Amino acid sequence: MSDQDHFFMAQALGLAQRGLYSTHPNPRVGCVLVNAQGQTVGQGWHVRAGEPHAEVHALRQAGELAKGATAYVTLEPCSHYGRTPPCADALIAAGVKRVVAALQDPNPQVAGRGLKRLHEAGIEVQSGVLAAQARALNIGFIKRMETGMPFVRVKLAMSLDGRTAMASGESQWITGPAARSAVQRLRARSSLVLTGADTVLMDNARLTLRASELGLDEEQTALALSRPPLRVVVDSRLRVPLNMPFFSAGPAVVATLNNPSTEAHQQAGHRLLLCPEAEGHVDLTWLLHQLAQEGANEVLVEAGPTLAGAFARQGLVDEYCIFMAAKLMGSSARPLLDWPLARMEEASALRILDIRAVGSDWQIIAAPEQALYSAYV
Amino acid sequence: MSDQDHFFMAQALGLAQRGLYSTHPNPRVGCVLVNAQGQTVGQGWHVRAGEPHAEVHALRQAGELAKGATAYVTLEPCSHYGRTPPCADALIAAGVKRVVAALQDPNPQVAGRGLKRLHEAGIEVQSGVLAAQARALNIGFIKRMETGMPFVRVKLAMSLDGRTAMASGESQWITGPAARSAVQRLRARSSLVLTGADTVLMDNARLTLRASELGLDEEQTALALSRPPLRVVVDSRLRVPLNMPFFSAGPAVVATLNNPSTEAHQQAGHRLLLCPEAEGHVDLTWLLHQLAQEGANEVLVEAGPTLAGAFARQGLVDEYCIFMAAKLMGSSARPLLDWPLARMEEASALRILDIRAVGSDWQIIAAPEQALYSAYV
Repeated sequence: MSDQDHFFMAQALGLAQRGLYSTHPNPRVGCVLVNAQGQTVGQGWHVRAGEPHAEVHALRQAGELAKGATAYVTLEPCSHYGRTPPCADALIAAGVKRVVAALQDPNPQVAGRGLKRLHEAGIEVQSGVLAAQARALNIGFIKRMETGMPFVRVKLAMSLDGRTAMASGESQWITGPAARSAVQRLRARSSLVLTGADTVLMDNARLTLRASELGLDEEQTALALSRPPLRVVVDSRLRVPLNMPFFSAGPAVVATLNNPSTEAHQQAGHRLLLCPEAEGHVDLTWLLHQLAQEGANEVLVEAGPTLAGAFARQGLVDEYCIFMAAKLMGSSARPLLDWPLARMEEASALRILDIRAVGSDWQIIAAPEQALYSAYV
Repeated sequence: MSDQDHFFMAQALGLAQRGLYSTHPNPRVGCVLVNAQGQTVGQGWHVRAGEPHAEVHALRQAGELAKGATAYVTLEPCSHYGRTPPCADALIAAGVKRVVAALQDPNPQVAGRGLKRLHEAGIEVQSGVLAAQARALNIGFIKRMETGMPFVRVKLAMSLDGRTAMASGESQWITGPAARSAVQRLRARSSLVLTGADTVLMDNARLTLRASELGLDEEQTALALSRPPLRVVVDSRLRVPLNMPFFSAGPAVVATLNNPSTEAHQQAGHRLLLCPEAEGHVDLTWLLHQLAQEGANEVLVEAGPTLAGAFARQGLVDEYCIFMAAKLMGSSARPLLDWPLARMEEASALRILDIRAVGSDWQIIAAPEQALYSAYV
């Protein structure tokens, strides 16, 4: 693996990153074409599902100059007909001499076949350059392909003493504008945001994207708004009335145990997802699996201590993203997670992956110690 | 203020820092003597109360070379006879040409008189070079001189979800060895460590220094052990029996409301400090004031949520030093501070001054937003 390979793959990863808010359910992919003299002759990144893949954009830009070039791709080129023709074929047709992939595509429809097809066409292939970074960038897609489950990120906002709301339920503005902007970007990169009935009822939560709060440039803002995350409320007993802001804000999914006449919801543009029951509640494992089947890569859980605690207790969390405000809310305030543990040895061990200032608040990224999927390298 | 002044004052502060664990109740002071050619001719730092001041060490080292030199001192040279003669006189006698002080001594017995005496002797004087750093280094001494109260640092160890112990009281080893070593150094720099009866009874706390855990070099370890902090337990109703490890570990002070026969405690080498009552408990403001009068600069509170919460509620805390372990202890575990607040606007606003990794744990330094005294620049 040469310095040049590293350099151009890093460039391709930078391009892939530009699809952070818009490619789902597809992966974020970037491609750089480099000629024998080490000059970039084409660049591309995947913008949105249904539109051309990164390789196609780069090949179009390079035109005739693709002949004899090296293609750096952040994910193995596809070998199957999806909504677009296979990129492996396009690379072969363009006369590319060498293909360097960051990692194999975990998609069982690809899984090494793309690289194999290139190799059989006489193209020099290599895989594994900046693989960890490429994996982190698409951790939701990769987890979904490998396990059938989405990557679950739980967002929490708490005071320094680990409290999320006063006993009264009062909880607005624990954190400041910079943290709220960071949450907007977490929503935007997610395939869907998931909350509970209590949060929708008590906080009037809408879980929408707001262009002015995203803190992104014009291109990225437009992309994010063109693919807003699906909004899902877990509401076992259909307690949330249709006139709540959550429903007026746009079409949503209601994960429920009830099997009522669904007409009112459907007429209002919403979908009722009937779920199996687990201990009196919506079976969260089933729900996540179902949502992954429908294409959810990254799921953002923005819920109160009860629902967030249920995800934690059931071992369904890949990452905690905790915004910590520099204030003390006191001992009668509500806990971070409803998760009664009796003994120290039951305490859930985490690894802290990152701590950084976000405005006047702090963002702590933590993951269960045994977590296999991480968006942090 | 020249670059040279900054350079040598920083050097003097580095020397002063070497007295971090041993000068109390005196301030930590360093001194550098520099000749007309910009060469250091003498260095000194105050080691222990009752021993020579920094200036005296530096003058001794310089000998005849002190004549015509500039003296950089991290605190205004004293002008009064304490346990040692006035340093201002010593500097005059040695023929020093110029004296640069980081800041005026807040001690009302000095308070500008040292610099005045030097000026009247024809010496060029200057004050305010790296004043903020010099102030932070002696924040306890300065607060005591200015307000009659010590600097109060509350040490807390918590999980990521803000819990300090399981509901059962089980709390050992929340944090790892690096954090425990950091706590040892916090103890060592304090004039006294203060705890509550519950902590002594339930955790068998001794609050002693352990050479092997200090993580300091030989010189600093020896200095720390030569001036261990006074150990104080707040025990309103004298519940802690004399056979507890806290008492067997050495002489201690018991702050109490009881006025019993004190013979047993005295015979065992301990002191009973009879305190006035405030709402059924030891009056903490009175206690801190009393301890400051006896020379306490920095007080380290290592207590459970009840006593630590009382300090917080009463606005007596200057700094929170929180060790955060990367684990979740759950919602039935004990809170960080017993401090029931009803409304968001009552929440206590803090400023986070520092966050850093300490082994596998994290150390968060926070201060009340309105705090006037800070050990962090």
